Amino acid sequence: MKALRFDGELRVMRDAPMPRRANETLVQVISAGICNTDLEIVKGYAGFHGTLGHEFVGRVAESPEASLVGRRVVGEINAGCGDCSRCRAMDARHCPDRTVLGIKGRDGAFAEYLSLPARNLIEIPAELSDEAAVFVEPLAAALQILDQVSIDSSTNVAVIGDGKLAQLVVRAIAHTGCRMLVVGKHSSKLDLATRAGARSLLVDSEHEKPSAKGSLNSWESEPFDVVIEASGSATGLPLAISIVRPRGTIVLKSTHHRLTEIQMSAIVVNEITIVGSRCGRLRPAIGLLATGDIDVTELITARLTLEDGIAAFDRAADASAMKVILNVA
Amino acid sequence: MKALRFDGELRVMRDAPMPRRANETLVQVISAGICNTDLEIVKGYAGFHGTLGHEFVGRVAESPEASLVGRRVVGEINAGCGDCSRCRAMDARHCPDRTVLGIKGRDGAFAEYLSLPARNLIEIPAELSDEAAVFVEPLAAALQILDQVSIDSSTNVAVIGDGKLAQLVVRAIAHTGCRMLVVGKHSSKLDLATRAGARSLLVDSEHEKPSAKGSLNSWESEPFDVVIEASGSATGLPLAISIVRPRGTIVLKSTHHRLTEIQMSAIVVNEITIVGSRCGRLRPAIGLLATGDIDVTELITARLTLEDGIAAFDRAADASAMKVILNVA
Repeated sequence: MKALRFDGELRVMRDAPMPRRANETLVQVISAGICNTDLEIVKGYAGFHGTLGHEFVGRVAESPEASLVGRRVVGEINAGCGDCSRCRAMDARHCPDRTVLGIKGRDGAFAEYLSLPARNLIEIPAELSDEAAVFVEPLAAALQILDQVSIDSSTNVAVIGDGKLAQLVVRAIAHTGCRMLVVGKHSSKLDLATRAGARSLLVDSEHEKPSAKGSLNSWESEPFDVVIEASGSATGLPLAISIVRPRGTIVLKSTHHRLTEIQMSAIVVNEITIVGSRCGRLRPAIGLLATGDIDVTELITARLTLEDGIAAFDRAADASAMKVILNVA
Repeated sequence: MKALRFDGELRVMRDAPMPRRANETLVQVISAGICNTDLEIVKGYAGFHGTLGHEFVGRVAESPEASLVGRRVVGEINAGCGDCSRCRAMDARHCPDRTVLGIKGRDGAFAEYLSLPARNLIEIPAELSDEAAVFVEPLAAALQILDQVSIDSSTNVAVIGDGKLAQLVVRAIAHTGCRMLVVGKHSSKLDLATRAGARSLLVDSEHEKPSAKGSLNSWESEPFDVVIEASGSATGLPLAISIVRPRGTIVLKSTHHRLTEIQMSAIVVNEITIVGSRCGRLRPAIGLLATGDIDVTELITARLTLEDGIAAFDRAADASAMKVILNVA
């Protein structure tokens, strides 16, 4: 089968082996999305070799659960061992021996077929388009913030970043009615955020921290209760620490692999809480996308085929790009 | 009056001005304790010039509240503006315009007299000795952890550090009945922690992280639910990140002023929560010390006079030292 693989170099293979795993379900991939994590892997940061991709919609080709065959599905990307204390607590996402689709120990979705345990797959309703379904996994990751931190109409929120992840965060939390400011470096991307209900602040990419802080101080009369770092930049966390209020909360969403230098004493003196936030539950994301309550169409920059995978990665890595979709079937 | 002041250099002055402030209360200092924050200030990290010291017990000399005069007191060290949103929320500790005794904008306790607002002072019971009363402020800071994080008999806790602050943390949380391991570099200090009910692990100070992690993995079958960083070392937080369980909590207590390099992605992937923790409520600390439920006598390394202040700082800075007390009156 065709697959877009990384083995120190990104290449399109035409004769990749079928990803069969014992007792698992084989899914024919319809479409898949390129995430910043994929771009990080290609830079060599995460140490993964194999077929990339973890945002997908597909149709079940073969399964030990006969009723699943033919169903259109999305999937939870973490597959736990099923046996450890985390798995027994229904938290396979944090199983120490987990595999993760296209990220850790398991070939991913940029291929004609992928394999996952049947329990990881969720059938999606007819009113959810293939393209919107590709956003279920990253939107679930954005919605995870609301499972971890209390945000309501009285909360003053700043989102740092204006890329793909930040845009989904904006849409995920906009319906809480919170006050929200998005801080970014690209005016066209900030326009997308303002259309989704946020205010925006353009910061100077050359001198991000001082200019951002100066502008933020004049912009906002009260510091932020919650600051969500979704910029993928090593400067995002220090900026967050400088603008969150005492006893406020910083949510970290970016999984970039550079080292970040922080002043620990500022966290202690202001008694800041920092919460790491990764994957989320798929069903709420499916619901919000199926009803159209969250519209992601305008976040799609380009649609390419699996054969054009390398060009698609180049496109996705461009500073102006949002989501690039690979149409497989 | 006599005072131990820092103006780029630490010196004992015999003719320091009395610290009178309008509408405040004048306290004659009986005893005061040297804290790591004082040592950091003398290294120049915090930018404070003036009389040092914030752990004290004293007797009220003059006050607009006549009933306070003659009372033996300890004091909340943060004095808010009384007018901002944080002060109105009864949180003067985080008032942006606050002064802090011996730390920020206000002369401290290593002097014959100090000044604080009457509302900052609490009378202490006769059964609380002067020496134990010096520990009220730092013990309150240690107890603050229990106001922020849930710890009970089922919680597996690691404390990183074996110094003054770590010892008070051990004593503050021991009565929850939690499982507790103290990780430190000094066997004599670790002995103090084990006497207070913790298990201990000596790590190699030359190669702290790898050897500690290797030993911890064999020591503990389950990773830690809560890791409390109280080492004052820049290597403490990276170690904490490596030993806390997924979705576990790291509490930061140290206010050292060096930059710390961290791998943000580890916080995100394991969805770790990091909580900054500073000062705490004084009354619970007074109670635990007055009843003898927490005994701090063995944490006192030396007792010196204010005139010997410079020698006292040298002694407090020694790696083997615990609390050094300055007897003033």
